[in-house]
Amino acid sequence: MTKRYPSQPRHLSALDLDIPPRSKLEPDLRKYFEVCDERLGFLPNVLAAYSFDPVKLRAFIGMYNELMLAESGLSKLEREMIAVVVSSANRCYYCQVAHGQAVRELSGDPALGELLVMNYRAAKLPKRQRAMLDFAHRMTVSPDEVGDADRAKLRKAGFGDRDIWDIAAVASFFNMTNRFATAIDMMPNPEYHAADR
Amino acid sequence: MTKRYPSQPRHLSALDLDIPPRSKLEPDLRKYFEVCDERLGFLPNVLAAYSFDPVKLRAFIGMYNELMLAESGLSKLEREMIAVVVSSANRCYYCQVAHGQAVRELSGDPALGELLVMNYRAAKLPKRQRAMLDFAHRMTVSPDEVGDADRAKLRKAGFGDRDIWDIAAVASFFNMTNRFATAIDMMPNPEYHAADR
Amino acid sequence: MTKRYPSQPRHLSALDLDIPPRSKLEPDLRKYFEVCDERLGFLPNVLAAYSFDPVKLRAFIGMYNELMLAESGLSKLEREMIAVVVSSANRCYYCQVAHGQAVRELSGDPALGELLVMNYRAAKLPKRQRAMLDFAHRMTVSPDEVGDADRAKLRKAGFGDRDIWDIAAVASFFNMTNRFATAIDMMPNPEYHAADR
Amino acid sequence: MTKRYPSQPRHLSALDLDIPPRSKLEPDLRKYFEVCDERLGFLPNVLAAYSFDPVKLRAFIGMYNELMLAESGLSKLEREMIAVVVSSANRCYYCQVAHGQAVRELSGDPALGELLVMNYRAAKLPKRQRAMLDFAHRMTVSPDEVGDADRAKLRKAGFGDRDIWDIAAVASFFNMTNRFATAIDMMPNPEYHAADR
Amino acid sequence: MTKRYPSQPRHLSALDLDIPPRSKLEPDLRKYFEVCDERLGFLPNVLAAYSFDPVKLRAFIGMYNELMLAESGLSKLEREMIAVVVSSANRCYYCQVAHGQAVRELSGDPALGELLVMNYRAAKLPKRQRAMLDFAHRMTVSPDEVGDADRAKLRKAGFGDRDIWDIAAVASFFNMTNRFATAIDMMPNPEYHAADR
Amino acid sequence: MTKRYPSQPRHLSALDLDIPPRSKLEPDLRKYFEVCDERLGFLPNVLAAYSFDPVKLRAFIGMYNELMLAESGLSKLEREMIAVVVSSANRCYYCQVAHGQAVRELSGDPALGELLVMNYRAAKLPKRQRAMLDFAHRMTVSPDEVGDADRAKLRKAGFGDRDIWDIAAVASFFNMTNRFATAIDMMPNPEYHAADR
Repeated sequence: MTKRYPSQPRHLSALDLDIPPRSKLEPDLRKYFEVCDERLGFLPNVLAAYSFDPVKLRAFIGMYNELMLAESGLSKLEREMIAVVVSSANRCYYCQVAHGQAVRELSGDPALGELLVMNYRAAKLPKRQRAMLDFAHRMTVSPDEVGDADRAKLRKAGFGDRDIWDIAAVASFFNMTNRFATAIDMMPNPEYHAADR
Repeated sequence: MTKRYPSQPRHLSALDLDIPPRSKLEPDLRKYFEVCDERLGFLPNVLAAYSFDPVKLRAFIGMYNELMLAESGLSKLEREMIAVVVSSANRCYYCQVAHGQAVRELSGDPALGELLVMNYRAAKLPKRQRAMLDFAHRMTVSPDEVGDADRAKLRKAGFGDRDIWDIAAVASFFNMTNRFATAIDMMPNPEYHAADR
Repeated sequence: MTKRYPSQPRHLSALDLDIPPRSKLEPDLRKYFEVCDERLGFLPNVLAAYSFDPVKLRAFIGMYNELMLAESGLSKLEREMIAVVVSSANRCYYCQVAHGQAVRELSGDPALGELLVMNYRAAKLPKRQRAMLDFAHRMTVSPDEVGDADRAKLRKAGFGDRDIWDIAAVASFFNMTNRFATAIDMMPNPEYHAADR
Repeated sequence: MTKRYPSQPRHLSALDLDIPPRSKLEPDLRKYFEVCDERLGFLPNVLAAYSFDPVKLRAFIGMYNELMLAESGLSKLEREMIAVVVSSANRCYYCQVAHGQAVRELSGDPALGELLVMNYRAAKLPKRQRAMLDFAHRMTVSPDEVGDADRAKLRKAGFGDRDIWDIAAVASFFNMTNRFATAIDMMPNPEYHAADR
Repeated sequence: MTKRYPSQPRHLSALDLDIPPRSKLEPDLRKYFEVCDERLGFLPNVLAAYSFDPVKLRAFIGMYNELMLAESGLSKLEREMIAVVVSSANRCYYCQVAHGQAVRELSGDPALGELLVMNYRAAKLPKRQRAMLDFAHRMTVSPDEVGDADRAKLRKAGFGDRDIWDIAAVASFFNMTNRFATAIDMMPNPEYHAADR
Repeated sequence: MTKRYPSQPRHLSALDLDIPPRSKLEPDLRKYFEVCDERLGFLPNVLAAYSFDPVKLRAFIGMYNELMLAESGLSKLEREMIAVVVSSANRCYYCQVAHGQAVRELSGDPALGELLVMNYRAAKLPKRQRAMLDFAHRMTVSPDEVGDADRAKLRKAGFGDRDIWDIAAVASFFNMTNRFATAIDMMPNPEYHAADR
């Protein structure tokens, strides 16, 4: 696989940490990794990278699953769309690759993955989703300027206060992961590149 | 208390969510809040705000404690210093108030809290801490430009790869909380203002 | 085809111009379009968009071919790499799609197309190409700051003055086309999306 | 005193200038400094720094007093609020410390000092003051974009042309002093830190 | 002439290319240069710089003339006004000097040349021209944000779709030439400086 | 005169203030205005604009003359050069026109006036002056980042601490006047435009 992508660095990250073999992980984590294998066909590199410390790994998994998979007024696709727009604004390679694939898969529209990576303003979107992405983008590039007027636009687009919490929470989360992945030069699994084109 | 700070909005946040009385929380959370009362003298507003959903609250507490309180090559003060510098770059009112107080308390130097809020470059700091803050600041304002040269500066200042993970993780975390707190206009507890001056 | 990409606007551009059928074009242009059909399998939308005015179309073709296809110290792939990095900095949807495909095709490395669209700094590249892309990026985002020090870096990376002309010319050209395509909302041919993944 | 604030550099400024003892100053300046001692309890460091040249010192005092203390449609507190918002945008340590204290003292609201230092948009303010601070902030960060529309907003908020002069003059003045203080690394008197909390 | 302008570098550009004497140029180009001599009194340096390669030179001339001199809903002065505003935003010395002179000549108003170089927002202009320049400026500094709302402002100011093409094309063209001229440090002919003051 | 410059607004400023006839001014100011008439051939509009309030006018004159005309390690031309570079960065029309003329007059090099207005980096300057302008520019656009490394560059270029004070003071002053002039839309005297070309 790696032969096909010579321009992508081969490391998991730029840091030399003591990552244990999966067989040495505690049972709950070993189990979780097996579920990933089954569902995705591979273990996302971010989980491998975190596996040097089970407490950190569990905290990350806990927050990730709660945000991206739990009940919400936002669909899973909408949460992935926010992930890509935020990651594009921050130009995080890992997250654009991984969540761009998720957008292609969940939407069945490969162009949507590219549009959100390249410039979400060029996409033909329902007003609700455009408002959601405008808010997430603004939180990312001008966090100090977000205020009542921005929340009012979300409400006008049909979002309730509980939804605003979720938009804000997802957009904030990827502002964390984007910076973290770039700061340690974490590389995405090569499986994402060709999937769902 | 609120009479003393008329310019600070009185709400917990701009969102109208159904926050239960503490007596209705599940036992582990009720216990956790009591520990906060004892240690700090009050319950941080961020925890009150999250308490409408126990799963989200536990995920947040889990990640926060792991990052800020667990074993690390960075002292607790150093982690709080990163928190303030990142929060200042993002101009998050809640986090500058709360973590500015933590810096004052842990350092015993009120000027350090103000320096990190106002312009960390003006502070007289050991080279190690200046390098750490330069990295955290750059991750915050130019996340797409962070690369090998930046990690090399941390290594030259004496940080190992495990420390770089922690610097990156703490700086990233506050890039999340800053955006979240501002996006929902979360207000800090008034107790922070006068403490440790 | 269009059914597969519902998020991409269906128009050629946002402007309503009187574009003639290809059969009405003058012979040299009709011939040129036929060559495109043969080589690419389709007519690039930018040429269709320009075809309302044969003089403008010929001027565009003339400059494009001279820059991208003529003899040069830069390979065709290198020129396409510059195109993508500049288009990414300017977030031009049309050019990132079209020239991202060209990079995938010419390099045989799909990840290179994604890396240059997402953040060229994350790519593993020969020093020569990194220097070339750094110069092109800087010309794009800080044109007023380019000076002797930047040209010296190109020379140190092995480029001669004739090469510097070409790097500057290609980077400049896409600063033109990026702005033009976005200003009129020109859409790329759907054929690019799945090609060479 | 200095022992309490180890992170604040101890110099008056980074420049080594020949500052005379107060006893050698000309009588009018010696008198002026005595008035400062009485009113404030100390001599502001900016005056000490300027005292190497009596002509410069008098010019500075003349302009400062005229702007901040003379009759105006703006209250003294409002002028200090502008000072802090401008100094925060420019991240001047000296001016944020000194004028943040003035805001705390004149308003009796310590949170107002922190809000204006940290992010004035989070403060609960009368519309008039918000308009005034928006104008001062915009003049600071986008001076080339200020125009009729901005002045119209001030007029709509109740300000007359004479008031607009004063808002513009005070905001401009701190754009001068902020840059000057940072350029020479001038340090504020330690007395400001704990006052009026 | 050069003695009068000691602060302007004397080279044609920073690149050492093999520029042939005019007598060695092919007849069509020699003829074109003679027309320049007659009309302007001198040969613009950009043409001299390009003359090392006749194909590049012809492509440049072809596009330039088509854009700036052909029939258009924009007057020649309006196209030059766009050139200066774009060149000012990009701070290109060559283009501001050369096209600033063109604005002075075509308008008969030397202040207009200076206003567009210094800050076009300060100029007293018909609404149509202000809308045109706002669009050109925005395309230059925020190309990724241009969208339907911007095109709607042009239409409201009286421009048709064919005019929007021309505004976009001229503004885009100078985003190319500005970057190219600065990247190779091309110097303008000294004759421009004093003309039409 | 005004007929020649139709694009320059005719007002003194956008504010309607009660400016007295010169004959009603107090004797010292009337005298000062007469000296201006003699030396320059006209009264600078900034002085006319300030003349509605003699205290403000005297404070402005006092600071201006002290900075620009008093003894200094910087020549008068050097101080005017700083004025133009700062005013260009802030895009202040009034100050670029007025101090651009001063640079042309004092240097005898009209191109220097244009270079500093358009992009000072393109000018051929002694290293000392380039260092001086780099510092003034950086203070203007990134005031929060100026530090020891910047002051060290000035010292390396031959400036003493007293000179650094003056560079900082002049650059700061024009950051004040630029913002003030633009905020009230003050217009320069038309006499500047054609002078010393």
